[in-house]
Amino acid sequence: MALPPPLFYADSERNADLLYFGRLAVPDPFPAFAVRGRKYALVKALEFGRAKKESAFDVVLPLETYLTRARARWPRCAVGDAEAIAVAAAELKQRKFTIAEDFPAGMATRLTRLGLKLTIADGPLLPEREIKTAAELAALREGNRCSALGLAAAERMLRASRVKNGRLFFRGAPLTSERLRLAIEIACLEAGAVSLHTIAAGGDQACDPHCGGSGPLRANELIIVDVFPRVQATGYHGDMTRTFLRGRASDAQRALVDAVRAAQLGALGAIHAGVNGRDVHRGVVAEFTRRGYETKHTPQGSVGFFHGTGHGLGLAVHELPRISGAVDYTLPRGSVVTVEPGLYYPGLGGCRIEDVVHVTARSAKLLSDYPYEWELR
Amino acid sequence: MALPPPLFYADSERNADLLYFGRLAVPDPFPAFAVRGRKYALVKALEFGRAKKESAFDVVLPLETYLTRARARWPRCAVGDAEAIAVAAAELKQRKFTIAEDFPAGMATRLTRLGLKLTIADGPLLPEREIKTAAELAALREGNRCSALGLAAAERMLRASRVKNGRLFFRGAPLTSERLRLAIEIACLEAGAVSLHTIAAGGDQACDPHCGGSGPLRANELIIVDVFPRVQATGYHGDMTRTFLRGRASDAQRALVDAVRAAQLGALGAIHAGVNGRDVHRGVVAEFTRRGYETKHTPQGSVGFFHGTGHGLGLAVHELPRISGAVDYTLPRGSVVTVEPGLYYPGLGGCRIEDVVHVTARSAKLLSDYPYEWELR
Repeated sequence: MALPPPLFYADSERNADLLYFGRLAVPDPFPAFAVRGRKYALVKALEFGRAKKESAFDVVLPLETYLTRARARWPRCAVGDAEAIAVAAAELKQRKFTIAEDFPAGMATRLTRLGLKLTIADGPLLPEREIKTAAELAALREGNRCSALGLAAAERMLRASRVKNGRLFFRGAPLTSERLRLAIEIACLEAGAVSLHTIAAGGDQACDPHCGGSGPLRANELIIVDVFPRVQATGYHGDMTRTFLRGRASDAQRALVDAVRAAQLGALGAIHAGVNGRDVHRGVVAEFTRRGYETKHTPQGSVGFFHGTGHGLGLAVHELPRISGAVDYTLPRGSVVTVEPGLYYPGLGGCRIEDVVHVTARSAKLLSDYPYEWELR
Repeated sequence: MALPPPLFYADSERNADLLYFGRLAVPDPFPAFAVRGRKYALVKALEFGRAKKESAFDVVLPLETYLTRARARWPRCAVGDAEAIAVAAAELKQRKFTIAEDFPAGMATRLTRLGLKLTIADGPLLPEREIKTAAELAALREGNRCSALGLAAAERMLRASRVKNGRLFFRGAPLTSERLRLAIEIACLEAGAVSLHTIAAGGDQACDPHCGGSGPLRANELIIVDVFPRVQATGYHGDMTRTFLRGRASDAQRALVDAVRAAQLGALGAIHAGVNGRDVHRGVVAEFTRRGYETKHTPQGSVGFFHGTGHGLGLAVHELPRISGAVDYTLPRGSVVTVEPGLYYPGLGGCRIEDVVHVTARSAKLLSDYPYEWELR
């Protein structure tokens, strides 16, 4: 049996489902739903004009009007957005809706008390989000073009740096993670994308995979640069990582980078529609094990390979599908995933290499493009 | 009776409550809670090192360990984060928690089935977030310093532009909303802040208060510039708006800007601890009415003054308290709010002027600082 139509209550600057549904970024939570195939939004006067002009909603209703009607219906109560939704749903004769796992519990409780029947989706509310259209593929390619521009800005700065007492200096001042990140983020902005939480971390800092990095960067150390900007015009992301080293790599560093690149190539070769993400991940683990790279968990933290191999990419940086040892998940045809194995050993350093691919019937087609040269002498 | 301790399941890059609680930005949802005054987080190996080193959590538990224990306890079920939370809660002998309104409904349902007793907070989960500490006030001042740098970049570009056939040109090329926004965002980045959804909208575009603006900017039109960056080191925001005009203002434009500034000054003078936000808002409405500026709602949209006068500012851009006609809300001592009346009339243009203040016992102390000169000849 088909599920009831979707109901949202979220801000679409942060909720990718609602942004996908209505194609309008709104900074505060607002109600939206479908009824008999038409998309409705209930928005404040503040957002009304934009919603009419710019969104994918078929019907934009003024929230204030529905609050007024709710006050008339429940004259003794403090009414809010829940009551406005109830009034609109009653007028449209739609009492049943499906909500996402992350629908706010407080609003769900209120709506249920008001007589709506809500079903929590078992899995994604909009499964079609996982399969990218041609326009979405183009937007993701553009996102990765911005990532690549960020990587290029970082590489240029590293190459142009001078080495003094083991530290890097750019135009006379110490080259820090912060300076490298700024150059990356400006390059992304100039291309029309915002890069948040950009990673430019060297040495042991990079062994915490989500550490952004801070302070001076050193010669002869591995520097992880991970750039996942959002294109402002479309909302879609890029997500690419390269690991650089300015100076001369040791044999151990070279072996580490070779292992990560080999594991990435193995994963890229293994991906096609119908493969299980867990098996792709296990191939990466096997490649690392074969080369002697062990993963260990200690009370202080983990070393080796201790994150997933990849994740879906779209309006959200992390979405379906998943390529992870912990998740049994078949990659569908037309989905888009990152492929980003990494190894992290404090003392030696961290390495991660990440690209983005489109999952087709027989292979993984790259949506990202940047060289793999990493040792910058 | 005291409420049970808080429980979170959110990503703290987007959930300000959880960021406030644990002081660690994590991009994926993770469980966190308090038990007997100590703060706990359950994080993946990927985040474990950062959580140990950088966060405000007293105890950082490895999520994988709890998933393993959950598998042992429920060997026939597919276990996930809900079961890991249940195991940790059982070990700590804590069955009751308070959750926020926006706690995910799916997770709440699972946890309830697993025997936890969840109470949805009636109001904010962490009411202390509304009252800013000295460190938070400093962070907010820094956020507004970044906003002001963005405004200064915009003003410089507008002043340096040339007028040709009514359009603005900067260094030979048309000055667009996009170019102005880029200059603002780079200025913020260079100061250590990320400015998302920056508004640089001219003419009728600015009459949709959240329209970002696109295309060429014109001489003699009102241009709203609204900059609300997030300081990367602290997570706190600035939020300031100025309205500029390059060229010569008409009498009607001048009267509009005068009205908005007078209304803002009135609101600033009316704010102190204990005042009701609704009364502050009503003062703004009265000032506009006195000057003949009517607010009207039509099926195409609204004109006049149709948004709130202000909102709390902190780790989130919109938080408590509220200064709005629709909300009965007393401003507490120590809170921080924006004061941002605006008027919008297609054909004439839009004007909004916004500053940020600290609500003290007797007055509103400015945390933002930028001149009010707007007619740039």
